[in-house]
Amino acid sequence: MNKIPVSILGATGMVGQRFVSLLKDHPWFRVVALTGSDRSIGRPYGEACRWVLAGPMPEYARMMTVQPTEPDGESALGFSALPADLARDAEPAYARAGKAICSNASAFRMEADVPLLIPDVNPDHTRLIDAQRRNRGWKGFIVTNPNCTSTGLTMALRPVLDAFGIRRMFAVSLQAVSGAGYPGVASLDILDNVIPYIGGAEEEKVETEPRKMLGQFSDGQITPAAFIASAHTNRVAVSDGHTVCVSLELERKATPEAVRKAMEEFIFPAAVRGLPSLPDRFIEIRGEIDRPQPRKDRDAGHGMTAVVGRIRPDPIFDIKFVVLSHNTIRGAAGGAVLNAELLVAQKYLGA
Amino acid sequence: MNKIPVSILGATGMVGQRFVSLLKDHPWFRVVALTGSDRSIGRPYGEACRWVLAGPMPEYARMMTVQPTEPDGESALGFSALPADLARDAEPAYARAGKAICSNASAFRMEADVPLLIPDVNPDHTRLIDAQRRNRGWKGFIVTNPNCTSTGLTMALRPVLDAFGIRRMFAVSLQAVSGAGYPGVASLDILDNVIPYIGGAEEEKVETEPRKMLGQFSDGQITPAAFIASAHTNRVAVSDGHTVCVSLELERKATPEAVRKAMEEFIFPAAVRGLPSLPDRFIEIRGEIDRPQPRKDRDAGHGMTAVVGRIRPDPIFDIKFVVLSHNTIRGAAGGAVLNAELLVAQKYLGA
Amino acid sequence: MNKIPVSILGATGMVGQRFVSLLKDHPWFRVVALTGSDRSIGRPYGEACRWVLAGPMPEYARMMTVQPTEPDGESALGFSALPADLARDAEPAYARAGKAICSNASAFRMEADVPLLIPDVNPDHTRLIDAQRRNRGWKGFIVTNPNCTSTGLTMALRPVLDAFGIRRMFAVSLQAVSGAGYPGVASLDILDNVIPYIGGAEEEKVETEPRKMLGQFSDGQITPAAFIASAHTNRVAVSDGHTVCVSLELERKATPEAVRKAMEEFIFPAAVRGLPSLPDRFIEIRGEIDRPQPRKDRDAGHGMTAVVGRIRPDPIFDIKFVVLSHNTIRGAAGGAVLNAELLVAQKYLGA
Amino acid sequence: MNKIPVSILGATGMVGQRFVSLLKDHPWFRVVALTGSDRSIGRPYGEACRWVLAGPMPEYARMMTVQPTEPDGESALGFSALPADLARDAEPAYARAGKAICSNASAFRMEADVPLLIPDVNPDHTRLIDAQRRNRGWKGFIVTNPNCTSTGLTMALRPVLDAFGIRRMFAVSLQAVSGAGYPGVASLDILDNVIPYIGGAEEEKVETEPRKMLGQFSDGQITPAAFIASAHTNRVAVSDGHTVCVSLELERKATPEAVRKAMEEFIFPAAVRGLPSLPDRFIEIRGEIDRPQPRKDRDAGHGMTAVVGRIRPDPIFDIKFVVLSHNTIRGAAGGAVLNAELLVAQKYLGA
Repeated sequence: MNKIPVSILGATGMVGQRFVSLLKDHPWFRVVALTGSDRSIGRPYGEACRWVLAGPMPEYARMMTVQPTEPDGESALGFSALPADLARDAEPAYARAGKAICSNASAFRMEADVPLLIPDVNPDHTRLIDAQRRNRGWKGFIVTNPNCTSTGLTMALRPVLDAFGIRRMFAVSLQAVSGAGYPGVASLDILDNVIPYIGGAEEEKVETEPRKMLGQFSDGQITPAAFIASAHTNRVAVSDGHTVCVSLELERKATPEAVRKAMEEFIFPAAVRGLPSLPDRFIEIRGEIDRPQPRKDRDAGHGMTAVVGRIRPDPIFDIKFVVLSHNTIRGAAGGAVLNAELLVAQKYLGA
Repeated sequence: MNKIPVSILGATGMVGQRFVSLLKDHPWFRVVALTGSDRSIGRPYGEACRWVLAGPMPEYARMMTVQPTEPDGESALGFSALPADLARDAEPAYARAGKAICSNASAFRMEADVPLLIPDVNPDHTRLIDAQRRNRGWKGFIVTNPNCTSTGLTMALRPVLDAFGIRRMFAVSLQAVSGAGYPGVASLDILDNVIPYIGGAEEEKVETEPRKMLGQFSDGQITPAAFIASAHTNRVAVSDGHTVCVSLELERKATPEAVRKAMEEFIFPAAVRGLPSLPDRFIEIRGEIDRPQPRKDRDAGHGMTAVVGRIRPDPIFDIKFVVLSHNTIRGAAGGAVLNAELLVAQKYLGA
Repeated sequence: MNKIPVSILGATGMVGQRFVSLLKDHPWFRVVALTGSDRSIGRPYGEACRWVLAGPMPEYARMMTVQPTEPDGESALGFSALPADLARDAEPAYARAGKAICSNASAFRMEADVPLLIPDVNPDHTRLIDAQRRNRGWKGFIVTNPNCTSTGLTMALRPVLDAFGIRRMFAVSLQAVSGAGYPGVASLDILDNVIPYIGGAEEEKVETEPRKMLGQFSDGQITPAAFIASAHTNRVAVSDGHTVCVSLELERKATPEAVRKAMEEFIFPAAVRGLPSLPDRFIEIRGEIDRPQPRKDRDAGHGMTAVVGRIRPDPIFDIKFVVLSHNTIRGAAGGAVLNAELLVAQKYLGA
Repeated sequence: MNKIPVSILGATGMVGQRFVSLLKDHPWFRVVALTGSDRSIGRPYGEACRWVLAGPMPEYARMMTVQPTEPDGESALGFSALPADLARDAEPAYARAGKAICSNASAFRMEADVPLLIPDVNPDHTRLIDAQRRNRGWKGFIVTNPNCTSTGLTMALRPVLDAFGIRRMFAVSLQAVSGAGYPGVASLDILDNVIPYIGGAEEEKVETEPRKMLGQFSDGQITPAAFIASAHTNRVAVSDGHTVCVSLELERKATPEAVRKAMEEFIFPAAVRGLPSLPDRFIEIRGEIDRPQPRKDRDAGHGMTAVVGRIRPDPIFDIKFVVLSHNTIRGAAGGAVLNAELLVAQKYLGA
């Protein structure tokens, strides 16, 4: 098939760079436009962008001229790494112009007619797209991926909810600095330190996004999963990889072994099988007593697999465990690319 | 008054070094013996000990000869920084020989007739000493201070329990590497990493020790506080200072403001007023949205004050907040020194 | 004596905060004005300033209203923590208005008629002040302290130059992130990383500033010390404390022992004795094979003492060693305060 | 060709783990034995080894039983990750038994008849093998790879020496903690810290090993390169990747541009072309002012390429620059594997 032309919105920031990196040699997509702020527009990407990822900037991007963040003639799809405030105006402009937007921004995540997607968790939520187009009169549409902490957490919850039901969830995160973008967290704030707070209503996101994603689609809308959630979010001196300590009250009692089994035996929904960015395993269970750990486990499944460990009884609720996922791959750019692949497979996008 | 002669058991390790440091120029105590392992015995402390604290080794200790860990003729009190397995035999030997032991080891903490003390939290628990002597036929006795994570946590719970009652508690810790002693945590395990596990049954300690300390003494025994606790404990790349995220279900509803007020207005029990190591403030409340932080707050009250912040409603329980305390000062050696001062004030020790 | 009224220029930045901290309860100075940028002017310092030092903001500063950076009526002396570009205009304005400026900025350091001072190294260089006033027609004047890396390095060189002469010097630094101010270095740039480059012509400063400070004053000008210098400067994951590896070719051969002795026996010049901020020791020699280290040695002499170790023969030149100093105390604000104290002692300032 | 059976000596340590990882699916070698200490012998490698590398332990190794470190019947070659003291006895035992040893240990590196090899730097030094066998009466032989810091440094020196000659070299390293093995450096010694010393005569190694490798083979022996070297070695808070600041006095003057060109145009010697572990580029030059950096550049050429930047004039000597290489890949296990591949290509090994 001919590759689908795509643009990257906000390509010079950290998540934008991950998009540039992940879309190198993508079998279905080819990047035709990189957009940036006024400071960057008109300059070659190789100059305008201070590359902060390990490894070199992909060659294909180096000589592309940074464009303004406006719908271009060529691309059918825009991957958005815009900050929430810019996303609020720019993404609808693309949708009105008939483009699909796969957005990492929080701006539209919780709107009732906007899918908040993890393709292997809730692929049917794309069915909100029809309502969205109708409501808003758009030829195109917006789908979003969740907050980086919600992502791995929701992946771990999916098989547990299906098997045992969930009544209440405590989640305490230890988040990597890359979650704050670049330059983001000042080194003086994190060396030999912990910051027990993350801006942008992080705790509220972690308390609400998983419920939407784990909700039921029917009659053109999502009914959120019914559990109550409480989150504490912390920043720690880790470059990539968010760790979350989770305690769950279940509807039906389950042993740690049964929970482990439910996670391990999770079967990818038919809708996502064969997607190029889908990892071999949805969840990897580590049996060692001190895993998962960000430095050692974040690259599982090329950063697309969630890693779970320490499944054990909880003295107050029923079960506790630790889940880790790569916050700028599965939790951001990689998640959005998988969303786009789902849209192709579901014929929302492409020839 | 004449200073009371004291020894430091296990003086070459990290907590031992904190004792050496804190007892320099202490107004009530003078160090007459430092004990160590076979490798160190007979050597000057200045040679036998690899000093890992910031600042120089105190002069007084440098030329003292390291002794075996056996009751000596001179000291009335032993501060124990022994590992739990050694403490199990050595500390009773001192107690039998008529010495008081203020121990940082976990070996006897949960025994029914051994006080687990934070002087400003439960000074009356020293009344267990009589039962202990009776039960065990010792002339001396053992009192203990809690696990480093339990310490700050219990300090924060005291005023809340008194004012509103506590039904259930979630506690998730982000602990400093110094809690594991020296050499302790390998740098390859913690640089750019989190370890979501701490050995030595840490989670169980955090779930049980606070309940004992907040329990009631009557009829020669302690009835633990009735709340249920669940803990996740994590190691992070911090040198000193344990951070704990706490969620509480209360018996009587309370606003965050009321909880803050209860903490701020905590009045030191009469028993501890005037003790040399008592800080000005039991708890310091930080109003900034991103505090407490270990690097910035661990030295509050010379490492003896617990610092609390982010008191806010909890969606599942009632209240959540963050508490930080210095794990090798208040949470270890400093706590034990304060215990000894209490024993003097209460006439269990001294002329 | 009545305390001299002083202002702090650029008080909200990191070095400004160190000034606020060090001038708390200073016996000779009292702070009457804090200046800041447009964003801060008119607001209470406690609100305008994001306090990044360990420990709380001093009470005296909290309610002071931030002023514009312009000569005020009251202060006789301004401590400048301005960035170099702002300093270029603002500091002369103060000098013209009759104020003394003790500046940490690099703007005027290398001007022929501006003293670049470390009081215990070159107190007589204040004699440039007369020439400066004459040349520029100023009632007041500017004195400067050196770059944070040059400071400790120059302290170590002083006794060696005096005793043995220096022909050539290699210096390779491992610098703390606080040297870049706040927010300064992004955490993603320094976690698990080294940056082998420091902006602002750092290497050139390290190659030239020590030569000026170690130069001779005569006939109203400084003849720089004659040695040649080469520097590599690196940023490492350390909060405070710059480490410098130094190799020296001497004019007269010397053993490591003789160099150590020269450093240890350094006698403070008469001009500085009794200054309130002078540490007990100019240089502290550590005998351990793996010292000095920033975390353990930076607070020597309350951050005002340079710490030297590993003095040994150099296979190419004559001698190599390691020197460490606290970059935001002795290497910045503390150095400037000591400069001001020297000016009082020398009657350039005060009643 | 049939794969050559190999063993890994000291397979449970950190460098041993790198061997296990790099030899997975190697086209020329298959691992038939893993050896370990008494504690490990007889246990499955998957249990005996605490895996500390990122990513999972290769499946092939998991069920292999750890053997004593003695010549086995099957393997033709042993990769040695033994500590120097054990290597001194064990490696000759293998050589006597007719095995080839590719050793990462320092024990025999500087012996006159033992090749110290970087295949793309000095492939002809394997000609020492004949003398070695003759001298020692061994059927097998030992070749060694250099110290991890010497490795990248020597790679950078090779083209410069060839093009311009070298008279004198200053080298100051900032070394990763993995260089000390596991558990190695205690986290309390390196968090927020620098250690300006590395045990095991590191500075002497850096001063002598490059000279041997850059020496001339003739008449059955090596004449070391004639330059003088001085090294300072430091440990920093980096997991992998050694950074070295280098200043060189050349025999023939050269501009930075000419040095860059010499490095970039380096041509692999014929002897190494086609070796499976040879990277695409010997040296990668980074043009950015603040590179190379360990976190961003250590994986260049899968950890087998040295990365050089900041080539600039030196005020004392002629040229200064920074070189970075991966210390446990090119600087240890990867280097030894490349040595073994060279031995195959040169028919010292294999059918």
